[in-house]
Amino acid sequence: MSEDNLPQDFSFKLFATDGHARAGEITTAHGTIQTPAFMPVGTAATVKAMMVEHVYATGAEILLGNTYHLMLRPTAERIHTFGGLHKFMNWPHPILTDSGGFQVMSLAKLRKITEEGVKFQSHIDGSTHMLTPERSMEIQALLNSDIQMAFDECTPFPCEKTEAESSMELSMRWAVRSKNAFSGGPGQAIFGIVQGSVHEDLRARSIKALVDIDFPGLAIGGLAVGEGQEEMLRVLDFTVPLMPHDRPRYLMGVGTPEDLLLSCLRGVDMFDCVMPTRSGRHGQAFTRYGKINLSNARFADDATPLDPQSTCPAANSYSRAYYHHLFKSKEILGAMLLSWANIHYYQDLMRGVRDAIKAGTFDDFATETRENWKRGLDR
Amino acid sequence: MSEDNLPQDFSFKLFATDGHARAGEITTAHGTIQTPAFMPVGTAATVKAMMVEHVYATGAEILLGNTYHLMLRPTAERIHTFGGLHKFMNWPHPILTDSGGFQVMSLAKLRKITEEGVKFQSHIDGSTHMLTPERSMEIQALLNSDIQMAFDECTPFPCEKTEAESSMELSMRWAVRSKNAFSGGPGQAIFGIVQGSVHEDLRARSIKALVDIDFPGLAIGGLAVGEGQEEMLRVLDFTVPLMPHDRPRYLMGVGTPEDLLLSCLRGVDMFDCVMPTRSGRHGQAFTRYGKINLSNARFADDATPLDPQSTCPAANSYSRAYYHHLFKSKEILGAMLLSWANIHYYQDLMRGVRDAIKAGTFDDFATETRENWKRGLDR
Repeated sequence: MSEDNLPQDFSFKLFATDGHARAGEITTAHGTIQTPAFMPVGTAATVKAMMVEHVYATGAEILLGNTYHLMLRPTAERIHTFGGLHKFMNWPHPILTDSGGFQVMSLAKLRKITEEGVKFQSHIDGSTHMLTPERSMEIQALLNSDIQMAFDECTPFPCEKTEAESSMELSMRWAVRSKNAFSGGPGQAIFGIVQGSVHEDLRARSIKALVDIDFPGLAIGGLAVGEGQEEMLRVLDFTVPLMPHDRPRYLMGVGTPEDLLLSCLRGVDMFDCVMPTRSGRHGQAFTRYGKINLSNARFADDATPLDPQSTCPAANSYSRAYYHHLFKSKEILGAMLLSWANIHYYQDLMRGVRDAIKAGTFDDFATETRENWKRGLDR
Repeated sequence: MSEDNLPQDFSFKLFATDGHARAGEITTAHGTIQTPAFMPVGTAATVKAMMVEHVYATGAEILLGNTYHLMLRPTAERIHTFGGLHKFMNWPHPILTDSGGFQVMSLAKLRKITEEGVKFQSHIDGSTHMLTPERSMEIQALLNSDIQMAFDECTPFPCEKTEAESSMELSMRWAVRSKNAFSGGPGQAIFGIVQGSVHEDLRARSIKALVDIDFPGLAIGGLAVGEGQEEMLRVLDFTVPLMPHDRPRYLMGVGTPEDLLLSCLRGVDMFDCVMPTRSGRHGQAFTRYGKINLSNARFADDATPLDPQSTCPAANSYSRAYYHHLFKSKEILGAMLLSWANIHYYQDLMRGVRDAIKAGTFDDFATETRENWKRGLDR
């Protein structure tokens, strides 16, 4: 924990590139992160159904925490009195917090958006709250996260271009206010969020605005909202090349292993998604064989470990038949083991991506990985 | 795992006594068990919400598996094809299986009891099954458990003495058939179960019958079924002294930490109960401070670890405020951590009991432990 030592400045180093893909390292107050990186989501100060020691053992070096959830329960002020989110949840490594903008739109009730910010009612108890750029940054400061996100409006999808434009412009004005309100110390940083829906000119204007504000990292928002993989990749194809080469690029809320692989090929450095843990709670495994549904009757008598070649104890020590039994019996252990195995697989994939970029063999790695997924268990 | 070595014979050694209390060791095919011992319950081939490594790390040396649950799902035959229950659930240490008699009475539908056995419908899918002494022993052999239990009738409570008598007599006839059907190898054993409700003469007759059958261990059934602690202790007071001194005495389905302590004082050697895990899933902690409800608002701002002096990571690394948050947020991690901490506390208690018996200071230990529980957190 660098909180016991002299804090390090926030920085991003690139080690290698292969085509558009990049391998690098982010340094934060609580440690370094190898990129491309996948961040497990610790919504309410816990990666659902997982021990933090196991999360770390998978190779995850940074978690995502949700401002919206934590401001409502147990409250940012309370977490601050406990010494911040790292101490509260026993995760001494880097944490990125989102701004609350996305959850306000997807979870809260009776939203009212003004220039000032978003007034909404809690989905938990109906109480009224206000999120503004200033309040979002105050909350993230109380949580003491290493990477904090500018407060933005989550543009609906699909929407008219005029709506996408005015939403992006509002987010850019909020980005200025967020940067001004950011109070991070050494090793902490604030990232801006590129908006503009599926429109190249809007994305380009958004990036220019964020570069002018001089954020040390940029995220791509407004994707993985129902547009589909093909459209997402089309947007990445014209958006990523416009982003600064010397700063981390974070694609928010993405995605499947294939989404990650194809986005890395396009130069993305960071990802977060609830998919490996949410799927893990419902019997969906992500493996080098592709996605498999362990509730399927074909696994009732399959004594093979989930993945005998995995280095993850949850994958190499428990049979598919045992997993099948646990999900059929609705046993919590099923969610525990499969969330662990899925997060481990995501980290295995990112390790493979980083190694391949450094070796200059990323195209071959991507082809082979996708072929393995397609072949499935029957090889 | 002794399954890779020469199997050891089943045996019970007494190391020390202190009043009626005894400290000893049971040897089985899969290892030894220090007594008095508390057995966590692994109902459906999992100790609910716990990793087996953590169960073992608490000091638990033996688990209980439920014949009723496992025969229905995934079936004993399937577990047999996977190499037995130990391999299926990744627990290489001793396992005791019950006979199914208790769950048939408490969970199954449309029971019909005859001299032959119990016909019933599964609570899962309504399918019809038959449990007899012979079938119960066949299932337990397929599960390959180290200690197998004779099939008995669970006498209702309260009931007329004539009913208790005929039920006990049926169970004793079933005990003969169970012993005859038992097919265990080296290091495996079958225990008989003392019945007779709350009646001294019936309990005495039951013990005499079981001693005549020559079981290597005896369990006390028909308690912890609603009679209350005082009545349970009254029955133990006249039952335990009649049981063979040189064989393990197992009080089934008990209980609270205080039940365990007071039963050890009366000469009981083994216990099982779902209480620490079930309570753990619902925010009830068992600690050296007594029982505390972590959902209580008083813990929302309590930054103290659940028990700073515990050697259990779940108890010494997470604050009461974090537990409170997890249970308020219905996060699975709450159940995971608190089941672990509770099982650890039960094992701490049994370690304390064993040490005190060996030191000849059990009365003092019991007094001090109960005073700590009563004082609670406010000392």
